[in-house]
Amino acid sequence: MKEIINSLSNPTVKELVKLRESARRRRERKRFVAEGVDEILAMVEAGREVETIFHNPNLASDSKAMEELMERCRNKELDFQEMGKDAFGKISYRRNPDGVLAVVHSWSLSLSEMRIGPHEKIAPIIILDEVEKPGNLGAILRTAEAMGAQIVLLSDPRVDFFNPNVIRSSRGLMSKIRVASAGKERVLDWVRARGLKLVGTSSKAECLSHRYAYHPQTAFVFGCESQGLGDFWKGNASGWVRLQMPGTASSLNLNVSVGCILNDFLRATQSD
Amino acid sequence: MKEIINSLSNPTVKELVKLRESARRRRERKRFVAEGVDEILAMVEAGREVETIFHNPNLASDSKAMEELMERCRNKELDFQEMGKDAFGKISYRRNPDGVLAVVHSWSLSLSEMRIGPHEKIAPIIILDEVEKPGNLGAILRTAEAMGAQIVLLSDPRVDFFNPNVIRSSRGLMSKIRVASAGKERVLDWVRARGLKLVGTSSKAECLSHRYAYHPQTAFVFGCESQGLGDFWKGNASGWVRLQMPGTASSLNLNVSVGCILNDFLRATQSD
Repeated sequence: MKEIINSLSNPTVKELVKLRESARRRRERKRFVAEGVDEILAMVEAGREVETIFHNPNLASDSKAMEELMERCRNKELDFQEMGKDAFGKISYRRNPDGVLAVVHSWSLSLSEMRIGPHEKIAPIIILDEVEKPGNLGAILRTAEAMGAQIVLLSDPRVDFFNPNVIRSSRGLMSKIRVASAGKERVLDWVRARGLKLVGTSSKAECLSHRYAYHPQTAFVFGCESQGLGDFWKGNASGWVRLQMPGTASSLNLNVSVGCILNDFLRATQSD
Repeated sequence: MKEIINSLSNPTVKELVKLRESARRRRERKRFVAEGVDEILAMVEAGREVETIFHNPNLASDSKAMEELMERCRNKELDFQEMGKDAFGKISYRRNPDGVLAVVHSWSLSLSEMRIGPHEKIAPIIILDEVEKPGNLGAILRTAEAMGAQIVLLSDPRVDFFNPNVIRSSRGLMSKIRVASAGKERVLDWVRARGLKLVGTSSKAECLSHRYAYHPQTAFVFGCESQGLGDFWKGNASGWVRLQMPGTASSLNLNVSVGCILNDFLRATQSD
């Protein structure tokens, strides 16, 4: 039986705080922290390598879910480490922690290492250009995964994929969808080499998404919320769509746009 | 020229903090605080009664937008009050304040006071049942306004509509869309009295939203994210729809669901 970690100055506590706060530390250590029962369960289900689970039984809001997580992890080679309430409070990044936080091995986001089987379905693909906010990225990954996007490509991202807010906002689903990151040129080359139709989104496009005749092999590119898509993509997309906005708002939340367009794509590409 | 407020213990500073933090205070004073140039501009454009604008010129990130706001407000009967940086920091609820915060008169959310002209278009309507999170509510109001919902009805809401997070997440658009709040029965009676078709959303519905033959006079009802729709609505909706989710995620963010369904409604109810 291991000792409970109680001290806030314990080196493990300090390391966990660093992993939470520093993208550089995460890169150096090739690890990140995932907090919450659902998030860690998603990692386990996705076959990601969970190294250690830190837990405080008194904080568990849903002891049944917690037990299920423990059960799912029992035969895996991973450590469990109990923590005192204050020590757990220090490593947590939630307002209402549910008493469990894991260190997980990060994985490669290299585009060249993305393996695709010869007959594997890769469309639809979502390209996020220069994505800036981790919460936004996580929320979009959740939507993309739910609505059947197979791959998400990050072109020149401005955020660390293993940021705790990406994990939280995606509810851990960032572990279940294939994601790669590269420069714009490389992303474009990759998409073209696979014969995908590139469709851009812009509020100035003439065609409404729900009237567009989507090809089943489509890659959608979305710009960041503040700036939209820059010149690079403008010259390279084969089609453009917009969402209908009869109200006064000039833009939609990016996550909502991704959801609406994937929903339109599903309708347009499926036979009854 | 009025004196700049610098002291953190100034009674005005204390009152503004109370208005930000306490729903009860907002109800008693019939006022709320709106922060940010865009948010306050939205209030002014919507004809809402802005009482005082507190500002710190050194914090303004976009001085042009700030000047525009000042210009738009010049002929209105409202006060401007400059604040020192620390005092402004105390009244602000943003991580990166843009140096402007207003006290605005709240308005009635009473369903019986909602005035509708004899030939006025009222559909589509969004009913949010037992909405819990202010950030979620605000984001949905932004989406609903952008995508042409005319009215949002809150049935048994568990959040104060004038909460600062509602204002921020809606980007101030909560001032531009008609919103009323009432108990479930009253909301249902109101919708029925106007001959609207009530369509519920549930992941267990048989019909996909993008195949549903929407009637132009439709009211959509959405449950809270954690629980979905309860028995009351289950017995009263005339139709049910779901969104297609080929991925592993069991649910979508509520804001994304509202966007997808309004997008489907727009497509289904418009002639070319």
